[in-house]
Amino acid sequence: MARPQTDHEATAELLLATAEQLIRERGPVSPSVTEIANACGMSQSNVYRFFPNKEALFEAFAERWFRELNEMMENVVESDLPPREKLYQFFAQRFVVKRARYEEDPDYFFACMALGDEHRDVVMSYVDLADHYMATILAEAISDGEFPGMTIDGLMSPINLMLAPFCDPKLIPQYEHSATIENLRIAINTLFNGLSAKSVEKPEAAGTPLKLAS
Amino acid sequence: MARPQTDHEATAELLLATAEQLIRERGPVSPSVTEIANACGMSQSNVYRFFPNKEALFEAFAERWFRELNEMMENVVESDLPPREKLYQFFAQRFVVKRARYEEDPDYFFACMALGDEHRDVVMSYVDLADHYMATILAEAISDGEFPGMTIDGLMSPINLMLAPFCDPKLIPQYEHSATIENLRIAINTLFNGLSAKSVEKPEAAGTPLKLAS
Repeated sequence: MARPQTDHEATAELLLATAEQLIRERGPVSPSVTEIANACGMSQSNVYRFFPNKEALFEAFAERWFRELNEMMENVVESDLPPREKLYQFFAQRFVVKRARYEEDPDYFFACMALGDEHRDVVMSYVDLADHYMATILAEAISDGEFPGMTIDGLMSPINLMLAPFCDPKLIPQYEHSATIENLRIAINTLFNGLSAKSVEKPEAAGTPLKLAS
Repeated sequence: MARPQTDHEATAELLLATAEQLIRERGPVSPSVTEIANACGMSQSNVYRFFPNKEALFEAFAERWFRELNEMMENVVESDLPPREKLYQFFAQRFVVKRARYEEDPDYFFACMALGDEHRDVVMSYVDLADHYMATILAEAISDGEFPGMTIDGLMSPINLMLAPFCDPKLIPQYEHSATIENLRIAINTLFNGLSAKSVEKPEAAGTPLKLAS
């Protein structure tokens, strides 16, 4: 966590840390301004100066949750690594952090996921940001001759689908044993080696295809 | 659903259909033998002849749930399709059925998932069977020269991970829009085109790799 730079930032961080503590204790219920004020020994009107309503509090809470992850994405995108290594680092670094957060306190982790579901628009802006960074890496890869015949749009959804267990925080418990850093490396290499216009084609007439469902 | 062949089978099917109806009405609670007997107008002792306990009832219920899916896997494995098309059909056919079951009644679908979690050993035997069929297809693929340098064991977990949204029934709602049959075709082709011993290798020294997490 970056050190707060001003008194204002330090107080905001204290309030958000208090919100975190309340969620850790009570589960996925957004703390009210009154509860945070009481827990910090501050007046309600003082807390309102920082967070005029629950929505503003959640937005700041989400910003705090995603800060480290966003910095990682930014650093990877700005690095001079080749695109394949960039895409690996893009997923690997965040995967390691999310996994560590989950392991540190699974209940708190899933409380945050549940609160995120209640504020889907806030969370989606971070998902969109991640997609934007990924698109930047894919554009570089394409201009390096990777993914022949593919467009950025055509790549986004197969890649997000095929890396879901490494990317979707809710899948962490279910894929705890198989979603390893080694398998992520294999997955990224498989995508770079195999995802091209050739992959979009149906196979050449190959025996009688079975009917889908009966 | 195959037509029951004998009176015994017909009665068992009636009892299981009654269990299904009770779960549809009440959610993820295994019906007791008494409840099923009452709902069918049969004596408890008669029901016990079919299902001596709740566990036996669940096993039969799971067998009924998986019957169609297992037949699909069997037919695909026994077909003379080339391995790539087999692997596609292996996932596609079951995906279409699971998706249709989910859409028909999402609450009932997730009630069945929840009951499956309570009887993990029963469900795992079907997961193991699916893995066995998949291994059979992969063995054929390898002997056809696909997946160069890879072993069946080395392929299982990357493939299961990279196809999770097409395979894991619990992920259906979350990936409802992006997990399409077209994207499954792309995913299967990407795996066949790109998953080889080359994918397991780390990249050649590629700039300074960033550290994982800080």
